[in-house]
Amino acid sequence: MSSRFWRPADVLSATRPPIAFAGSRIDRADHIRADPAAIAALQTAGARVLRLDGLDPVLTEQGGLDWGTLADADRGAELIFLGIDEAQRGCFVEVPSDAPSGGPHAGPASWNAMSVLEAGELAAYGGARALVSWHARHRFCSFCGQPTVLAKGGWQRTCSACSSEHFPRVDPVTIMTVEHDGRLLLGRQPRFPAGRYSALAGFVEPGETIEEAVARETFEEAGVRVRDVEYVASQPWPFPSSLMIGCHAYADDPAITIDTTELEDARWFTRGEVVDALGAVGRGESGRAFGAPPAYAVAHLLLRWWVERG
Amino acid sequence: MSSRFWRPADVLSATRPPIAFAGSRIDRADHIRADPAAIAALQTAGARVLRLDGLDPVLTEQGGLDWGTLADADRGAELIFLGIDEAQRGCFVEVPSDAPSGGPHAGPASWNAMSVLEAGELAAYGGARALVSWHARHRFCSFCGQPTVLAKGGWQRTCSACSSEHFPRVDPVTIMTVEHDGRLLLGRQPRFPAGRYSALAGFVEPGETIEEAVARETFEEAGVRVRDVEYVASQPWPFPSSLMIGCHAYADDPAITIDTTELEDARWFTRGEVVDALGAVGRGESGRAFGAPPAYAVAHLLLRWWVERG
Ligand SMILES: [Zn+2]
Ligand SMILES: [Zn+2]
Repeated sequence: MSSRFWRPADVLSATRPPIAFAGSRIDRADHIRADPAAIAALQTAGARVLRLDGLDPVLTEQGGLDWGTLADADRGAELIFLGIDEAQRGCFVEVPSDAPSGGPHAGPASWNAMSVLEAGELAAYGGARALVSWHARHRFCSFCGQPTVLAKGGWQRTCSACSSEHFPRVDPVTIMTVEHDGRLLLGRQPRFPAGRYSALAGFVEPGETIEEAVARETFEEAGVRVRDVEYVASQPWPFPSSLMIGCHAYADDPAITIDTTELEDARWFTRGEVVDALGAVGRGESGRAFGAPPAYAVAHLLLRWWVERG
Repeated sequence: MSSRFWRPADVLSATRPPIAFAGSRIDRADHIRADPAAIAALQTAGARVLRLDGLDPVLTEQGGLDWGTLADADRGAELIFLGIDEAQRGCFVEVPSDAPSGGPHAGPASWNAMSVLEAGELAAYGGARALVSWHARHRFCSFCGQPTVLAKGGWQRTCSACSSEHFPRVDPVTIMTVEHDGRLLLGRQPRFPAGRYSALAGFVEPGETIEEAVARETFEEAGVRVRDVEYVASQPWPFPSSLMIGCHAYADDPAITIDTTELEDARWFTRGEVVDALGAVGRGESGRAFGAPPAYAVAHLLLRWWVERG
């Protein structure tokens, strides 16, 4: 596992990147968003424009993000103001005029970016991708059906007819390990690679707390009741724009009833099996009992947190 | 403070309502949502339909939620399936055909409901309000501008033209107390009642963790850098549909620089001042140094957590 994505001491630190897609060094400079003159002043020859292939990252030969200039941007294209970099340059990304390719899930180019990009650059890409994807899917007003236009440097769209304001969306998702008698509950979705088991997960719904969402999802997917939900760590996951909220909980009754519309299997794994599976990830192998989630996923951190906490 | 909204031992418990709008006893029965026949089977004479006045709650003379029957619902109205109550009755709420009155903020009827409704009923109202409000603002497809129709029992809308699927939105918001040298940083928005100070807050944006959002918002609003962000508790806040994520953090440098577009003032308060202000809330008074947020707000719980933790 690459050490840049997680250090045990960083789990609850806001100042260092604990996990993939966190740790952007671009200053969001939100006071500038509502100031068109200030944004225009940043749109100079020195401004940087992130190159994307649809929603996918474009990497340089050196394995960095490919930043172009405003000269590369389509005339009249909508530009999102990402913020200001450490060299005080404005950073932008263009909303493509066509629907960008790339579905809601991470594809091969994104998985590759997770393994080669430096943490701050990966975070910059993730934030930009989530915004571009949201703009491309919100060209019309959900309230009245008329066209919307980009506003506030891309942190809003405004309806041209009814003036409704629309804001980029972030979907909170709970993802949780559950413990009983020293074992961990993990599940397997049909779309997973062979042998892979991971933490259960599900969207937080209107009208529930994080803790209630953890309890509901664990019961729905595996028939297991939990208590004493603990928050462990969070991760922005830009496929398309989730906030993964990693939690740990405890179960008194280990009986499992699988919801087969969600899971193919769910099982309790021993600490030794989890340790073995985590160790195998760094060698590109599956563990003896199961394959752990990749180092970039918050589920991997949840397993590691559980093992290291002892 | 009413003890039903918070008990110290409940802060991290998933099984008891720690806070206003949590603790619904309606089973969301999500496996039924995708089964129109099962939903239809619940639409019997015994089904309950929540009465709303626009988005506002309607209370009975006994101070409970006012539930009608399907006979009261408009013929052809869109019905949201809220779940199944403890008496195994289907619970529904109607999407009004007109734009419902009631803005994004809590109005007098909602504040009254928070003070008189039993916790489970308040949670049922909050979840229903967030869903109705979302449906009423998503009658058109944000991707193509054509009309959408309710699907999956109201947990989705589907575009009649492009088949895009749209899901109810939950907006994660960080809300945080910050500590330095035994004092707590609280801020005052211009719209607050006289004397009120509360925890700083702001939406989590695409591309950041909860911890990063806490750090960014505290620096933007008050110019204070934080470290060691801790999660404390969360709350669903249906105005219009936020997930309040309550955190605590620490600052090394107490110098404050206020963003006057967000805050009117921000100050450090002593533990004694916070204890006094919390005590005054139960008597309907303001504290000597400031007025604490009401018992229904997660900010109130954050202050109480800090005081009781010692
Ligand atoms: Zn509109
Ligand atoms: Zn459409």
